[in-house]
Amino acid sequence: MFPKRGFSVEEFRTRTRNAQTLMREAGLAALLLTTEPEIRYYTGFLTRFWESPTRPWFLVIRESGDPIAVIPSIGAHLMSQSWISDIRCWGAPDYADDGVGLLAETLTEVTAGDAMIGVADQMESHLRMPLQSFEQLRCEIGGRRLTGDHAITRHLRLIKSDTEIDKIRVAARIADRAFDRVQEIAEAEVSLAEVFRRFQILCLEEGADWVPYLAGAAGALGYCDVISPATEAPISPGDVLMLDTGLVWDGYFCDFDRNYSIGPPSPAVQAAHARLVEACHAAAEIARPGVRASDLFHAMEAIVKAGPGSGRLGHGLGMQLTEWPSLIAEDHTVLAPGMVLTLEPLAATQDGKFLVHEENIVIRETGAEYLSTPQPSEIRVI
Amino acid sequence: MFPKRGFSVEEFRTRTRNAQTLMREAGLAALLLTTEPEIRYYTGFLTRFWESPTRPWFLVIRESGDPIAVIPSIGAHLMSQSWISDIRCWGAPDYADDGVGLLAETLTEVTAGDAMIGVADQMESHLRMPLQSFEQLRCEIGGRRLTGDHAITRHLRLIKSDTEIDKIRVAARIADRAFDRVQEIAEAEVSLAEVFRRFQILCLEEGADWVPYLAGAAGALGYCDVISPATEAPISPGDVLMLDTGLVWDGYFCDFDRNYSIGPPSPAVQAAHARLVEACHAAAEIARPGVRASDLFHAMEAIVKAGPGSGRLGHGLGMQLTEWPSLIAEDHTVLAPGMVLTLEPLAATQDGKFLVHEENIVIRETGAEYLSTPQPSEIRVI
Repeated sequence: MFPKRGFSVEEFRTRTRNAQTLMREAGLAALLLTTEPEIRYYTGFLTRFWESPTRPWFLVIRESGDPIAVIPSIGAHLMSQSWISDIRCWGAPDYADDGVGLLAETLTEVTAGDAMIGVADQMESHLRMPLQSFEQLRCEIGGRRLTGDHAITRHLRLIKSDTEIDKIRVAARIADRAFDRVQEIAEAEVSLAEVFRRFQILCLEEGADWVPYLAGAAGALGYCDVISPATEAPISPGDVLMLDTGLVWDGYFCDFDRNYSIGPPSPAVQAAHARLVEACHAAAEIARPGVRASDLFHAMEAIVKAGPGSGRLGHGLGMQLTEWPSLIAEDHTVLAPGMVLTLEPLAATQDGKFLVHEENIVIRETGAEYLSTPQPSEIRVI
Repeated sequence: MFPKRGFSVEEFRTRTRNAQTLMREAGLAALLLTTEPEIRYYTGFLTRFWESPTRPWFLVIRESGDPIAVIPSIGAHLMSQSWISDIRCWGAPDYADDGVGLLAETLTEVTAGDAMIGVADQMESHLRMPLQSFEQLRCEIGGRRLTGDHAITRHLRLIKSDTEIDKIRVAARIADRAFDRVQEIAEAEVSLAEVFRRFQILCLEEGADWVPYLAGAAGALGYCDVISPATEAPISPGDVLMLDTGLVWDGYFCDFDRNYSIGPPSPAVQAAHARLVEACHAAAEIARPGVRASDLFHAMEAIVKAGPGSGRLGHGLGMQLTEWPSLIAEDHTVLAPGMVLTLEPLAATQDGKFLVHEENIVIRETGAEYLSTPQPSEIRVI
């Protein structure tokens, strides 16, 4: 039922070679990677240990040849299971030098004295090392310069391979099955906190490796917030219950929600839900190579009329819960086969209340393929 | 059974005033905070939405008065439930200016033209905003200087209030109960991946809000790695199964593990386990105000003789899975009442295999109080 875990060495090699091609075009002699998805993208290094902020981890991609891992020794065994063979370790945490010396030495060894070394610096990127260490690194690499990475890794990650898409599909099907069982766990008088706990159990029972993200809300005529944690307040008859999950299978996320009316839905709720489903279909209908992210935004906005300030109506999806691009009027990313997107329109009901509906799609040569099971106009009723 | 969620406004106000006292001593006119635990520490802003890397979030603590939140509008509703009243929002993601202008304006408004503004830059800290935005911010604040934060927030977070300790205790008790039920889910022939899934279900059933961290391993005579994800390989008779969880209740972690022998343990395994438990007790025995983190390290190391390169034997714990300090020979942090620590000795069995055992304690005036239920010498047997 589940595909094989992991990736072929060939796939990692291709990702590395593609990065090296773009590095040459950008005049970069190396890439320095510091975050979980960046390092995992090139190595396959998959661990929940990133939850600990203590240790920095580094990967160096040079002009040619395989990447070099510069990592705390606690990760040596796991990294040695990957395709990476050049693994350089220090005993972290080291209060005198927490890997900076070893990293500087490595960069000095594999680049010329006036090299440009790219580090992710654009939107949605972070530097996962202490600022002090970053400044120290600048000093220790001589005439080399740390500069932006021209969004090379973001660019490569934008197009998913079939193996990656299969993993996202598995995650989406697990969520589909969990959403189909919500009537087992949610009813009037049960607290939202309890529904959250039980829904995570459903996701695990259906095969999730873990459930990094769950948000949701419940309220009459919709909700005013989609990021709050659950409260102990009980669900009431007439509420709309929304659950939005980003669960993971083999390191890949799905990200979509489902709405449930507790008892018969009001006409306003039913109308808003139908409009949301229509908006998703309108975007999926036009989604194909050559169309822009902003086109999908406008296709949905024309139907839901969320208005200015409503935020984005979807985003990329893959190794992270949210990835580049954003479905906003200003994002003119040209869609291409292998891009995985969420469609996430929002429709007001009344009084600052709204509903959100979300689906996951992948762009194919001929159009959009749903990874989540697209929903009918009618809101689910419990 | 569970204490009240959240904190009093008074507690947040005290944290803020304490920061302001330290800021004055350090000559800082403001603190700029960008990460989840930092912002939550001063505001109570608790959401799993940080899983999305898209949006930056900022909190400004000025010389006096309450903190100012500079955040994406998607968080306005939730932040307005906190004690923070000055909430300034922008519609993120904004490709022209993703909050930097609003942040610069805020810093310019609340600090003098030559102010020093502290940003966390030390070990275990990260800057959670794009480097480009950080550079842009530098340009937009005129003569003001972004500098280190003198570890002010780390220093304050080191000492937990009784309310914080109560939350960590709740998390630890949930984990205790889940660990007591492992015989329901683990036996020979079940895959480690399945054990991981089922153990997360046990944690949720026992009351965890979510399970951000689970690691573990299984192998004859111990394991060679404590950070790997689970594989589909089945557990075998004679294996030692180890599960290490960081589960969360109301935003606070526990972090400890338990070992299980699948069938009767070998003498080497039993001896190693007894040594680990003895090491934890030795450290807990001497742990009291005035003793140093390094003293706890040496107390454990004298018993387990893990040797050089074995890494740290414990760490701080609270809003994050791992916090300052580290139990290593070089960490001379003086223990004080309210510090919460893990004791995490490691003992070799043979052939590069080892066992790890972990407990959670809080430092009280008179000594250590266990938050996890301390284990007997005998390894658990399934």
